Amino acid sequence: MREPSKTNPIRETNDEARAQARELIENAQWASLAVLEPETGYPQVSRIAVGMEEDGSLFFLASELSGHSKALLEDGRASILCGEPPDKGDPLAFPRATVMGIVSKLSRDDEGHGARREFWLNKHPKAALYIDFGDFAFYKMSVERVLLNGGFGKAFELTKADIAGPVQAK
Amino acid sequence: MREPSKTNPIRETNDEARAQARELIENAQWASLAVLEPETGYPQVSRIAVGMEEDGSLFFLASELSGHSKALLEDGRASILCGEPPDKGDPLAFPRATVMGIVSKLSRDDEGHGARREFWLNKHPKAALYIDFGDFAFYKMSVERVLLNGGFGKAFELTKADIAGPVQAK
Repeated sequence: MREPSKTNPIRETNDEARAQARELIENAQWASLAVLEPETGYPQVSRIAVGMEEDGSLFFLASELSGHSKALLEDGRASILCGEPPDKGDPLAFPRATVMGIVSKLSRDDEGHGARREFWLNKHPKAALYIDFGDFAFYKMSVERVLLNGGFGKAFELTKADIAGPVQAK
Repeated sequence: MREPSKTNPIRETNDEARAQARELIENAQWASLAVLEPETGYPQVSRIAVGMEEDGSLFFLASELSGHSKALLEDGRASILCGEPPDKGDPLAFPRATVMGIVSKLSRDDEGHGARREFWLNKHPKAALYIDFGDFAFYKMSVERVLLNGGFGKAFELTKADIAGPVQAK
């Protein structure tokens, strides 16, 4: 059993951590997306609405006019922070998960487009206003690692398989 | 008067945009911080609690054991997303601001430490539990630009001066 230490604060993965990360990610209505700004190399963070697929991948709808879409076409490296803190209490005491991976733009001809579109509209009904605009598309993150912070001193590093499973649009 | 266009969606700065950005940033209890992960170059996003100074700088308290602190010592380029969406409604319809700049670690011997500490405890009283731990320090962002998204089609790029002014710990 690995214990966290000053040099390696990451705890050994357990079922509680898997369930916590999965719940944070599946339930997320919105998230923060970090990309690399092409002109400067700065890490640039913006807000997205987010969805999850059964294999643990994340996806989101974005306009190709947005800064993050343009950045991701140049360099797909990205991370997505899920976990919405409540109004009250220390925001650092509430769990959150950073999902790291490579994002690529999906075509409307992609075989999964219809199912993804239906899922998105169930989860984010207001998106009906713009989901079919010509400049909007889905972007999918191929997940490499999940950094779970379950509260002070509760750090875990999970895999895509750790968060995979059936997903509901809620 | 500059109008937004497909090639340049940024609107001309006005007082309404300045006030909106300032309110989002000053009132933020928490925010999302993006840094460059040293080992991989990936943009990595995590949650922080945040405060603002009168000159428009942002600052936050962090442990030197955290991933973002270690990353910032290697490369100070960062961005901070402020603006907490409400529970209901399309999260992309609510305003948010991405603050871009360079973050550096402050010493406890810094002349502003006492005032910063007092402000922090007024704004984030739960931080009394750890603010004086040896591995915690303040980190300050020297602000270069503020990207305001005031809702669909309302994009502005502001300066540090645009958001500067007296600050209350609320």
